[in-house]
Amino acid sequence: MADEFDVIVIGAGPAGENVVDRAVRGGLTAAIVEERLAGGECAFWACVPSKALLRPVDLIGDVKRSPGLSLGPVDVAAVLARRDETVSHFDDSGQVRWIESVPAEFFRGRGRLDGPKRVRVAMEDGGERLLTARHAVVLATGSVPAIPAIPGLAEAEPWTSHEVTATESVPERLVVIGGGVVACEMAQAMHGLGARQTTVLVRGGELLGRMEPFAGELLADSFAESGIDVRYHVEATRVERPERGGKVTVHLPEGPPLEADEVLVATGRLPATGDLGLSTVGLPDGKPVEVDDSLRATAISDGWLYAVGDVNWRALLTHMGKYQARVCGDVIAARARGDELSQMRDLADGYGAPQVVFTDPQICAVGRTEAMARADGFRVRVVDYDMGEVTGGYLMGEGYRGQARAVVDEDRKVLLGVTFAAPGAADLLHSATIAVTGEVPLDRLWHAVPCFPTVSEIWLRLLEAYGL
Amino acid sequence: MADEFDVIVIGAGPAGENVVDRAVRGGLTAAIVEERLAGGECAFWACVPSKALLRPVDLIGDVKRSPGLSLGPVDVAAVLARRDETVSHFDDSGQVRWIESVPAEFFRGRGRLDGPKRVRVAMEDGGERLLTARHAVVLATGSVPAIPAIPGLAEAEPWTSHEVTATESVPERLVVIGGGVVACEMAQAMHGLGARQTTVLVRGGELLGRMEPFAGELLADSFAESGIDVRYHVEATRVERPERGGKVTVHLPEGPPLEADEVLVATGRLPATGDLGLSTVGLPDGKPVEVDDSLRATAISDGWLYAVGDVNWRALLTHMGKYQARVCGDVIAARARGDELSQMRDLADGYGAPQVVFTDPQICAVGRTEAMARADGFRVRVVDYDMGEVTGGYLMGEGYRGQARAVVDEDRKVLLGVTFAAPGAADLLHSATIAVTGEVPLDRLWHAVPCFPTVSEIWLRLLEAYGL
Repeated sequence: MADEFDVIVIGAGPAGENVVDRAVRGGLTAAIVEERLAGGECAFWACVPSKALLRPVDLIGDVKRSPGLSLGPVDVAAVLARRDETVSHFDDSGQVRWIESVPAEFFRGRGRLDGPKRVRVAMEDGGERLLTARHAVVLATGSVPAIPAIPGLAEAEPWTSHEVTATESVPERLVVIGGGVVACEMAQAMHGLGARQTTVLVRGGELLGRMEPFAGELLADSFAESGIDVRYHVEATRVERPERGGKVTVHLPEGPPLEADEVLVATGRLPATGDLGLSTVGLPDGKPVEVDDSLRATAISDGWLYAVGDVNWRALLTHMGKYQARVCGDVIAARARGDELSQMRDLADGYGAPQVVFTDPQICAVGRTEAMARADGFRVRVVDYDMGEVTGGYLMGEGYRGQARAVVDEDRKVLLGVTFAAPGAADLLHSATIAVTGEVPLDRLWHAVPCFPTVSEIWLRLLEAYGL
Repeated sequence: MADEFDVIVIGAGPAGENVVDRAVRGGLTAAIVEERLAGGECAFWACVPSKALLRPVDLIGDVKRSPGLSLGPVDVAAVLARRDETVSHFDDSGQVRWIESVPAEFFRGRGRLDGPKRVRVAMEDGGERLLTARHAVVLATGSVPAIPAIPGLAEAEPWTSHEVTATESVPERLVVIGGGVVACEMAQAMHGLGARQTTVLVRGGELLGRMEPFAGELLADSFAESGIDVRYHVEATRVERPERGGKVTVHLPEGPPLEADEVLVATGRLPATGDLGLSTVGLPDGKPVEVDDSLRATAISDGWLYAVGDVNWRALLTHMGKYQARVCGDVIAARARGDELSQMRDLADGYGAPQVVFTDPQICAVGRTEAMARADGFRVRVVDYDMGEVTGGYLMGEGYRGQARAVVDEDRKVLLGVTFAAPGAADLLHSATIAVTGEVPLDRLWHAVPCFPTVSEIWLRLLEAYGL
């Protein structure tokens, strides 16, 4: 009976941890299974170390825009040492202690479904444990990088987000395959920290294709200014790396091949469901686990299976996984108790997840882009404003540039989406997230006065441009 | 008849300019009178140049917290040159052109009321003009620094906000009298730009006495770390400056006097109504002009007199003056037309004006402090959280510290006030301003997901600490 729990969570990333936390707070017992490090990709190989690498690059941009200040050479070893500190030197004992303090039981090993409400754990120490769940099993195994089928690429053992964020040195010459968030962030991080030749190969015609078009354009300008070579409509045809860890040659459809010291693949993710025992409960291996707004797997009739975070494919963002996990943990506990909290639902994904790309400029968006809003059938009006024209922006530095867009639902006079693309705009975004999620009417937003002279006065300008 | 206008505004600071803009947009004719520079204190001797001086000091703090980066010596001349650029080298021709483009008529001279709906302008060129208003006269003359009655102080011709923001050099030794916003901002600016001995004399027991107590405490810690000497419960007894512009001696009740190269007085403001002809319409000279929520002077029976910005003493903040001006301009035009916009009111001052103190840490507050909320009779619960414990804060730099407080109305479950005290928090504030002004319920704020890893996750932590 020691191996029976109310809730069993597979995957101790931020999403899994939050499920456990909320479920136990709700009166349940919980176990959590993790094969690698408790804390997950986010804490060790994604958000946290990437931000630690990007923060100095951000500041280099800020200082360049600030007459009177000048930087000495970047001490890359110190930046990497700080990065190591932020990932606790890849030691998860603090996270494990936190899990035990919840309290929840931590199993270090590979967890797989083994029929309804059963999880078999191949323990790291070689043993095996069969856990059974009284109420729920929650999948929170996240995602893994997709490696495109370019001849020679897999054999070249390219960097993914995992390796680049953990790097012990900055390559002299880097080729980045991809034009999305990881590609853009890491191209800029490595370039800002000293890569002297950084080439980004984008299959499509723009960076950050899911954002408002101006976001990728501003970022492309910034890349061009700093000497990052972005090539559009290009797919590598073949990759060669004769020696492991040695020089890489990336062949292109036209022109000379690119010689590099490292190649980073950032062309998307796959749900980490390939070896999770999904077939033992009748679900397809390797696919996302589809869930309803209570994060419950729609294909499981008894309703004991849940999925939170990347694995459900709703939004591949740590904060959304954590949010879903809070909803999920509360719902499971409430359903066990039979009280009204069981009505809690994931509303935020419906409005459109907020996201920050931590580049310079930072690309910050919440809700729907204009294209998404129109596709969803809203009667839309779009308002744009140049953030460099806002006094607070101008005062952030010489050559500060930025662009903002508000997407208005003309029928309800509320915001469907907002995008800010400007240096340091990350914490400006939450104002938009509250406005969109809170459905605060425009004529009430008019009375929310932004301080002078902050960048937040973009709100005033957007509302004025709208005609208020 | 050329000297008759629908609206006459005295004072072409940001508030006055916004009245003109809105009134003309509403179909009225307008004149605006300014004795000094169009654009006002804000554009030339307050917000704008002070921010230009503080931005590099901010960045110096950020870089110090960022391992791997190091700054060379500050080029103070370049900082001052940038400041000069931000104030257009004290040339207001751009502002005047903007006024003329509204279009409105600009009169450069001293405007004074001369009985109901009449404004007499002593023109800069020596002539005099008598203007008459068909609908309204709006007072927007702002405020002036108060100089305390310390023997010898006025004779020493101390710096006020006006002189310090326009300085051509950084004094070696500076004494600051006062502990409010201007005192704190300018002490840090001058110290950060090279003053080697900065002493702040505070009459009370804390810095920023109107804010939540922790705000002043965090700022005091920062001052102590950077070597700014703050002395509490001290009032200078006498000031001596034998030579104009020469060394200053500030005598204290106890201990040796302070020798300094400059003394800055920042002990508050007075409404700029001493010589405005108020007595010609039955109002007391030198007092604030009390207004209702439409910004109309309550003591004038016919309702033709309005006052916006510092002069009405609602909130001595540029952005609130501008906001009041937008309301006022719209209301005047709507009353002239007789339409529903005449119901527009100043709501924001009732919630509590947002404010940012641009120090390191930045002190950002909106709505009511705990003390104010309790004094106003609300049933209050207060939630505090350490912003250094938020991952997004930790990632901003080594030694990043901060504190947040949310003041909750327990009856309505909405926020009455929020304070953030942390480096670079300025643009985080508008999230709180929207939440407070929009009266977004806590259980809806719960679904506004802050991005990981931004400082905005303080919102998640505050709501968790509240129990959501």
